[in-house]
Amino acid sequence: MDEFSFIDSIKQSYYKQAALKRGIGDDAAVFHIDEDIVAATDTFVEDIHFSRSTMQPFHIGYRALAANISDMAAMGARPMFYLVSIVIPTKWPMEEISAIFSGMDAIASQYQMDLIGGDTVSGKELAISITVIGSVPDNRARYRHDAKSGDIVFVTGTLGDSQAGLYLLSKENASVFKDADYFILRHRMPAPRVEFSLGLQKLNRVSLNDVSDGIANEANEIAEASSKAIVLYDDLIPIHSSLQQFPKEHQFQWKYFGGEDFELIGTVPEKDWPLVQEIADNTKTKVTKIGMVFESEEPRVYYIKNNKKQKLYKHGYKHLK
Amino acid sequence: MDEFSFIDSIKQSYYKQAALKRGIGDDAAVFHIDEDIVAATDTFVEDIHFSRSTMQPFHIGYRALAANISDMAAMGARPMFYLVSIVIPTKWPMEEISAIFSGMDAIASQYQMDLIGGDTVSGKELAISITVIGSVPDNRARYRHDAKSGDIVFVTGTLGDSQAGLYLLSKENASVFKDADYFILRHRMPAPRVEFSLGLQKLNRVSLNDVSDGIANEANEIAEASSKAIVLYDDLIPIHSSLQQFPKEHQFQWKYFGGEDFELIGTVPEKDWPLVQEIADNTKTKVTKIGMVFESEEPRVYYIKNNKKQKLYKHGYKHLK
Repeated sequence: MDEFSFIDSIKQSYYKQAALKRGIGDDAAVFHIDEDIVAATDTFVEDIHFSRSTMQPFHIGYRALAANISDMAAMGARPMFYLVSIVIPTKWPMEEISAIFSGMDAIASQYQMDLIGGDTVSGKELAISITVIGSVPDNRARYRHDAKSGDIVFVTGTLGDSQAGLYLLSKENASVFKDADYFILRHRMPAPRVEFSLGLQKLNRVSLNDVSDGIANEANEIAEASSKAIVLYDDLIPIHSSLQQFPKEHQFQWKYFGGEDFELIGTVPEKDWPLVQEIADNTKTKVTKIGMVFESEEPRVYYIKNNKKQKLYKHGYKHLK
Repeated sequence: MDEFSFIDSIKQSYYKQAALKRGIGDDAAVFHIDEDIVAATDTFVEDIHFSRSTMQPFHIGYRALAANISDMAAMGARPMFYLVSIVIPTKWPMEEISAIFSGMDAIASQYQMDLIGGDTVSGKELAISITVIGSVPDNRARYRHDAKSGDIVFVTGTLGDSQAGLYLLSKENASVFKDADYFILRHRMPAPRVEFSLGLQKLNRVSLNDVSDGIANEANEIAEASSKAIVLYDDLIPIHSSLQQFPKEHQFQWKYFGGEDFELIGTVPEKDWPLVQEIADNTKTKVTKIGMVFESEEPRVYYIKNNKKQKLYKHGYKHLK
């Protein structure tokens, strides 16, 4: 298959977004959005961000776009469009490249997103670069720098599931573990929290971040951007009941530093907490209060465990991964 | 330098575009544009799209962004923002990566463009993926499918310069050639025709394409998208006077199939041709009438040379480059 017939094969027969005036087929796409526009880009390289041994091509595409959609959720934005640049090694059969695009299409369809551009080039290693574009009502974009003292810190879903899934994918005997399929699915096909994030538009002030590198990292980003201290209560950090079958040190590592759960962590004024719970109910999202925001001379994150308060560092942060 | 200090080093101290509400520093950038929005993405891989033997890191960045800006010019759009994903092999010193970004910044500054996002990841080969976002007055985006019979076909600048430059860069004795520096500069630091393209907003109808793969390819794209025949007059194809020092077969190859000149080729109603010439004068752009558009049952491009009419194929097209 040459580039032309490949682009034809991924070209949509109709546009899902009414805002789109022109998708793939000219030098650029054209659209019109009356709200604020949100744009982010993320790149995934084989054997660094994913491995063929734990992901099928469909999952590679699904998860790559999920990570980008999660950035939109972290901004309070509705994902609308995506552009894909892909470097394809000659050893990859075109059918597997198509499967990557099918994976992206599967999650894009859930949000009526249109693929509006891209580039396919050959190279030595598979690299997928996605730009996602979304919209948010004017001045309703959610930033990390909006935490204030007295805020409640919340997180959606359960943490550490994706790392547990990755761990199980490295095991020959994964099936002896309880809920192995659940954890593996959470790793391969994570669900960004778009509906819940859009629900939060009812609130005047929310600081928000998505859990791509572990909550230790994300909580520190909020603390730094807002110049506040955040205290997390270890007992309250939500984990799946079957996570308890793994060694304690794994549990600790995964829930604080295990990335790629693509849950949301944020802070809201205490008075708005009941509204957040109502939005969670309405969007069938689990939400848990896990801490509080305090004034602080230096931005810091602590966790309290067995009545001991300890510093929580950005351990999840990786150099140039 | 780790990823954090690198991102700090490329983070702008102020925003050039008033439309930008939030640049680098959160999960995504936020901006507001009242006009139609135009977006495109392009990827460049070492040893496929560029080589260290002919390009310094500064030029690699400059030319990569120039190619993207040229896509905006091809749409009649004003470039505003860009996002950069870069895969960096460990053998590349961080200083050279910074030089790539300096090259991008040099051309971005000419258009007051802001770098609003990106991702830096490690990998085996250098790959740069750029998404560029621009704006165009509502329904003034220029497409390939708008050519009508009787239109004049025009092209900006001179053709084949970039390929001549690449040819000279492969020669030990480049300096014996006339205007070698000119051709090499045209290859390394091409100038997209943004001002001229914006000037064309005065016209109601223009079909437009940029010359990234050679005019044979681009003219065929317009003919196909518009279902018309295009006839080009070989005598009229503009070349630099010093291109004549190269063998005739090189001249022919470069002017029709030599890509990366990033000139514009388009068609306009004959009555608007004087206005196009005026816009060219005002923006100090050379513009040349090179052909005409005709009705045709099948889309075709011909060129007339020595009173002989021959088919011109999309020879410049390359599979998955």
